[in-house]
Amino acid sequence: MKKGFFLCILLFCSLVSFQQVNSTYNLMPVPRELKSHGGRCAIDERFRISVSGNPDPRLYAEASRFVRRMGEKTGIFLDKQGYVTADDRNPAATVAITVKRPGKLELNENESYSIEINDRQALVIAETDLGAIHALETLMQLVSNDEQGYYFPGLTIHDEPRFAWRGLLLDVALHFFPVNSVKRTLDGMAAVKMNVLHLHLCNDQGFRVESKVFPQLQKTASDGIFYTQEDIREIIRYAGQRGIRIVPEFVVPAHTTAILTAFPELASVKRKYTLQRYFGVFDPVLDVTDPKVYAFLDKLFTEMAGLFPDAYFHIGGDENTGKDWENTPHIKAYMKEHGLKAYMDLQTDFNRRILPILKKNGKTMMGWDEVLQPGVPKDIVIESWRGKEAYYESVKRGYRAILSNGYYIDLIQPTDFHYLNDPAPAEAMLSPEELKNILGGEATMWSEMVTPETVDSRIWPRTAAIAERLWSSGDIRDVPDMYRRLDIASLELETLGLTHMTYREAMLRRLANSYDTKALKVLVDVIEPLKIYERNQGDTMYTVFSPFTKLADVTGPDQPLPRSFCNLVDEFLKNPNPAQEKKINDQLTKWKENHDRFLQTLRNSPVLKEAEILSQNLSALASSGLEAMAFIHQHKSAGNSWLAEQMEILEKSKQQGGRCELQVIEPIGKLVKIASGSGKANVGSQDMLTAR
Amino acid sequence: MKKGFFLCILLFCSLVSFQQVNSTYNLMPVPRELKSHGGRCAIDERFRISVSGNPDPRLYAEASRFVRRMGEKTGIFLDKQGYVTADDRNPAATVAITVKRPGKLELNENESYSIEINDRQALVIAETDLGAIHALETLMQLVSNDEQGYYFPGLTIHDEPRFAWRGLLLDVALHFFPVNSVKRTLDGMAAVKMNVLHLHLCNDQGFRVESKVFPQLQKTASDGIFYTQEDIREIIRYAGQRGIRIVPEFVVPAHTTAILTAFPELASVKRKYTLQRYFGVFDPVLDVTDPKVYAFLDKLFTEMAGLFPDAYFHIGGDENTGKDWENTPHIKAYMKEHGLKAYMDLQTDFNRRILPILKKNGKTMMGWDEVLQPGVPKDIVIESWRGKEAYYESVKRGYRAILSNGYYIDLIQPTDFHYLNDPAPAEAMLSPEELKNILGGEATMWSEMVTPETVDSRIWPRTAAIAERLWSSGDIRDVPDMYRRLDIASLELETLGLTHMTYREAMLRRLANSYDTKALKVLVDVIEPLKIYERNQGDTMYTVFSPFTKLADVTGPDQPLPRSFCNLVDEFLKNPNPAQEKKINDQLTKWKENHDRFLQTLRNSPVLKEAEILSQNLSALASSGLEAMAFIHQHKSAGNSWLAEQMEILEKSKQQGGRCELQVIEPIGKLVKIASGSGKANVGSQDMLTAR
Repeated sequence: MKKGFFLCILLFCSLVSFQQVNSTYNLMPVPRELKSHGGRCAIDERFRISVSGNPDPRLYAEASRFVRRMGEKTGIFLDKQGYVTADDRNPAATVAITVKRPGKLELNENESYSIEINDRQALVIAETDLGAIHALETLMQLVSNDEQGYYFPGLTIHDEPRFAWRGLLLDVALHFFPVNSVKRTLDGMAAVKMNVLHLHLCNDQGFRVESKVFPQLQKTASDGIFYTQEDIREIIRYAGQRGIRIVPEFVVPAHTTAILTAFPELASVKRKYTLQRYFGVFDPVLDVTDPKVYAFLDKLFTEMAGLFPDAYFHIGGDENTGKDWENTPHIKAYMKEHGLKAYMDLQTDFNRRILPILKKNGKTMMGWDEVLQPGVPKDIVIESWRGKEAYYESVKRGYRAILSNGYYIDLIQPTDFHYLNDPAPAEAMLSPEELKNILGGEATMWSEMVTPETVDSRIWPRTAAIAERLWSSGDIRDVPDMYRRLDIASLELETLGLTHMTYREAMLRRLANSYDTKALKVLVDVIEPLKIYERNQGDTMYTVFSPFTKLADVTGPDQPLPRSFCNLVDEFLKNPNPAQEKKINDQLTKWKENHDRFLQTLRNSPVLKEAEILSQNLSALASSGLEAMAFIHQHKSAGNSWLAEQMEILEKSKQQGGRCELQVIEPIGKLVKIASGSGKANVGSQDMLTAR
Repeated sequence: MKKGFFLCILLFCSLVSFQQVNSTYNLMPVPRELKSHGGRCAIDERFRISVSGNPDPRLYAEASRFVRRMGEKTGIFLDKQGYVTADDRNPAATVAITVKRPGKLELNENESYSIEINDRQALVIAETDLGAIHALETLMQLVSNDEQGYYFPGLTIHDEPRFAWRGLLLDVALHFFPVNSVKRTLDGMAAVKMNVLHLHLCNDQGFRVESKVFPQLQKTASDGIFYTQEDIREIIRYAGQRGIRIVPEFVVPAHTTAILTAFPELASVKRKYTLQRYFGVFDPVLDVTDPKVYAFLDKLFTEMAGLFPDAYFHIGGDENTGKDWENTPHIKAYMKEHGLKAYMDLQTDFNRRILPILKKNGKTMMGWDEVLQPGVPKDIVIESWRGKEAYYESVKRGYRAILSNGYYIDLIQPTDFHYLNDPAPAEAMLSPEELKNILGGEATMWSEMVTPETVDSRIWPRTAAIAERLWSSGDIRDVPDMYRRLDIASLELETLGLTHMTYREAMLRRLANSYDTKALKVLVDVIEPLKIYERNQGDTMYTVFSPFTKLADVTGPDQPLPRSFCNLVDEFLKNPNPAQEKKINDQLTKWKENHDRFLQTLRNSPVLKEAEILSQNLSALASSGLEAMAFIHQHKSAGNSWLAEQMEILEKSKQQGGRCELQVIEPIGKLVKIASGSGKANVGSQDMLTAR
C-alpha cells in the first residue's frame, strides 16, 4: 500500500516534470530523456563547432550546414568557420561533437546521442555520426533567445528512437516530383529525425526511373517524366548525407499498366496498353504464368537492385483485381494445374518465384498487406495499409511489419488522428518477441491529388507529428502540446525551403486573379478538401492532366482556425466569459459579412464560381451562430421552430463546393442546440460532425 | 504645311490609340502592332490547340505546356488534350498555329509572329516555332474574363523584337544557383520573350562547371558546388525548349583566383591561392606571358566550347588591376620586349592569342568593355558595363555591342531607371549602320548579395520591364502604364513558380521568429537595401559564408508603398482633397504607431536589433508628417524653429539600419517644407532625396 502510494507520487512527479519539459522546450520529436539544469550557453560570434572521433565524413558536411543554418537563424555572421573539417577538433568549441565510429545506413544502426549543455558549450556524444546528426537537429530546435541574444538552455539529453524504421512514402508515379522537391522533403525528414524515404517509382500512370537495360520503359511509359540514374544517385547521395535510406518500390504484378505499355507481351490479357490517365484500381496485370515475365523482372530488378544500395526492395503487390487472370484460359489452366484455388494464391506463387531474384541481389523483399498469404517465407517485410488486424496477425505470425495504416497523409485527416495512431499500442497486447517484429511506420504521400506545388502542404507539418510517434516514447500523447510544438516545428521546416506555407499565398493570388486575396482567404481558412477518397468521386473526376490549382488545392488538411474556433466554443459553453463571447461574435460577424466581399472577388475570377455555395453557406451559418449567441447571452431559449430553421441551414452547409467542405458546422451547431434549449453542447456533435 | 498638319493628326491618333491599347490590355512586352477589333473567342472545355506546318518539335512540348497552364489559370479541365502532337492539326482548333520552318537557336533568327483572334479561334502564324512560342506567351497574357468566364479579346497583332539579343546574366560563381532555380528563371525569361541566358560560370569564389579535362577545377576550386556536365546539358535543353540560348562566360585573365587555386602554376605571382571568400576586385591574374596558360586555356575552352553549343563565348576580361603583372619582373620584361606600354596592352595581346582558340571551335569572342583596346579584331562582341561613352564609341568603331550598363539589377535601383535606359536612344545620334551594331542588352544579376532564396526577388519583376525595353518600340516609355502592367506581369510570373513574392512572407516569419509578422512588415514595406555598392561597405562586410536572411534581404528594390505614397503626397500638394488627406494621415498614423508593436516583435527576435533605429526613425518621421499635415490643414505656417526641428528629424532618418534605408523621407520632407511655409513641394526634393 505504502509502496503503491510512493509509486503514485513518483509517477505524478515524473508526469509533472515531463509536462514542464514539454511546455518549456519546443522539441519535436520529444527526446527519450531530458533533464533541465538551468544555466545557458550563449550563441554569438565566437560560435564554433568541432568534431572528434571517427565519424563518416558526412558529419563534416552536416556540421558545416549547421553553422550556416545557425547564421541564417540568428543573423550572426559565422563567417570564420566556413567548412567544418577533420581539423576542427577543439574540445572547447561551442558545439563539441565526439563520435565513436561511422554510421551505416542500414536498419537498426545505432542512432542514439546525448547532449550536455553547460554555460560554456554543448557537448554531443554519439556512437555513430547518424546519432550526431540527430543531435544537431535537436540543438537547432533548442536555440532560444531573450531580448539580449541567443543561447542553448542548460540541460542534459539522452535520446534514441523507439522504432528503427521511420519512413515517408513519396509516390512519384501518379504525379512526379522533381529532384529539388525530393531534396527539400529529405531536409524536412532529417529535421524531425526520420530515416527512410520510400520511393513509389512506378504505377499505371508511368514508370519513373531510367532503365538502361529496358530503355523502352522510360521512353514509352513515362511521358518523358522520370529520374535519370544520375538523378537517383544524387537523391541517394543527398539522403545518405542526411542519414536517410532510400527504399525503392516497383509494384508488381498489378498496377503495371506503364510496364505493359512498354512491354504488352508481358500482359495477361492481350489488348492495347497505353498509360493510364485516371487514378484508381485497374485490371491490367502481368502474366505470371509466363517465363518471359520472370526473365524480364530478373533483369529489371537486378539492374534496380544495383542502382538502389539499400537492403530492402519493395515489390508492391497491392490491389490486384484478379480479373485479367480469372478471365484468361491459360492462366486458369495454370492455376488448376498447380492447385492454386484463388487468384491470390497465384500471386503468392508469383511472389515465391520473385524472391530468389531479390535474394541473389542481396535484398530483403517488402510488400503491402496482400503479399501476406499462406506459405510466404518469414524473411519478407509486410507494410500494412488496409487495417490493424492483418498487421497484428502478421506480427504474431512472425513476420516483420511496418505500419502505414493510419498514416495516409493523402487523406486530409487531422494531425491528431495520425499522431495517436501507435504502431505498437498497449491494447494490442503483443509479447516482447512480437513487439520486436514491429519495425516502425511510414507516412504515405500518395500523389493522385498533389503536385510539386502543393505536396509540401500535404506532407508538412503533419508528418512531423508522425515522426514523433515513431521516435518518441509511446506515452507522449498530449495533443494540445503536440499542436503547440507542431506550430513551431512548422516555422523551422519553412526555413529549410519547404513551401507548405508559402504555396497558399501564391495560389490565393492566382485564384483571386489579384493581389487582394482577403475575402478568399477568409473562406479558404475554414474549408478543407473532401476527405478520405471522396474528392475524386468514382475515381473519374480527375486525370493526370487536371488542374490542381483550385479551391481544394489551396486549402489543406487540419486547418488551425476551425480547430481553435471549436476549442473557443467548447470553452465558452463550459465557462462562459465576456472575452470569449466577444471573440466568438467577432469571428461570426467576420464570416457573415465576408460573402459580399467574396462576390467582388468572384467577379474578377470565374474559377471561384465553385466556391460561391461555400461562401454563401458560411455566411448563413454565421448568422445562425450570431442568433444563437444572442439567445445564449439573454439566457433565453430560442425554441423549437427556430431550431428547425437553423437545423436546415446547418444541414445545407454540409454541401460540398469545389470538392471542399466547411469545417465550422460542428461548433456552430453546438451553439444552436444550446440556444434552442434542446440539449447540452455535445448533443449536436454526433450528427453535426462532418469528417473531423 | 497641310501635309504636316495631316501627319500631326495621324500621329496624334496613333498615340491616342496606343495609349488606349496599353490601358486595355496587359501585355508586357508591348507588341509592335496591335489592332483591337471587338468580339471575343471563348475559352472553355472545348479549348484545343493545333500545330500545322513544319516546326521544331519543341513547339509541341510548349503547346502542351500551354494547355496545362491554361487549365491551371482558368481552372477548366482540359484533360482531353494531354499532349499536343503533330497529329493535332485541326485548323478549327481554339488556338491554331501555323509555322513555316524550325527555328534555329541563333542570333538574328526570325522571332516574329502574328495573332488574329476572331469569335471562334485565335490564329497564330509564324515563320519559325520561336515566333510561335512568343505568340503563346502573348496569348497567355491576353486571357481575359468577365463574370461568366474566360476569353481572348478580338484583335490582330503583328509582332517582332526590336533587338535580337535580349539577355539576362546570371552570376552562378559568387553565389551558386541550383538547376531548378535556373529553370524557373528560364521560365520567367520566356514569359517576357527574353532569349539569352548568359551564365557567369567562374570567378575568384569558385569554378562552377565540371571539367572532365581538368577535374581539379571543380574538385579543388568549387567547394563541391558546381554544375555537372549533365546539369549543363539539361539547362541547355530546357532553355532551348523555351527558345533561349545559353551563352557561357569564363572570365580571364583576372577574376581567376578559383582557377589559380586549382592551378597555381598559371599565376603571375607565385603565392598560395585559395578560394576567395570576400567579394570585390582582386589582384590574382593569369601569367599571360607563359605558354602553359595558352595550353591550359586551349584545352579548357575547347572542352567548354563543345559543352555549350552557342556560337558566342564570353571571356570576361574585366577588372584586371594589373598589379600582379606590374610587380612581376619577367612579365615586365615581356611587355618591354613586345612593346606593350600599359598592362591593358598586355591584356589585348592576351585576347589576340585567345581568339584563335575560340575561332577554331567556331565561336565568336565576347568580352566586357575592357577588351575593347586598340588593335582588337572587329569580329568580337563588346558587352558594355561601365558607361555609355565607351559603348557608343565601340559601336561607332564598328564593333557589335550589347548594353548592360543601366541594367545592373543587383544595384537595387527602381524599375523605371532601367526601363528608360535605351540601348539605342535617339540622342546618341547613331547612323543606321551604327545602329546595326547594337545587338541588344542584358540585365545582370551579379550575386554577391543574393542566394537561391532571394534571387527571384532581385530579378523579378523588374527584369520584365527591361525585357520590354529590348523587345518593344523605343517610344513605349509610359512609366505609370509600365508599372500598371508590371504588377500584372508579376502575378503571371508567380504562377510559373517564381518566388519573388513568396520569399518575403517566409523570410518575415523567420526574422520575426513568429507567425505574427505585421509590425515587421509595416517597416519592411518602407525600406530598401542600400543601393549601388553601398551595402557591402569597403567590400569587407560580407563573405560567401554570411547569412543572407536579414533585414536587407527580406526587403527589396523598388518597393510599391513608398512609390505610391510619393505619388499620393504629390497629388495632394497639387490638388488637395479630403480623401487624400485622410489617406495620408492614416498612413502616417500607422507608421507612427508601429514602433511600439515593432518593439514587441524585437523582444522575440534579437536579430531585428539592427532594424530598431529604422523603426524609431520611421515613427519620428511620421510624427513630423502628421504635424505638417495639421499645419497644412489649418492653412497655418509652422515657422522656422519648427522647421529646424523637423529638418533634424529628417536628416537623422537617413541613417542606415541593417544595411537598409527608409524610403519615405522625401515625401514627408515635402510636407514639412510646405507646412513650414518655406517652399514649394519640390523645394525639398533635392536634398531630401536619398537614392531614388
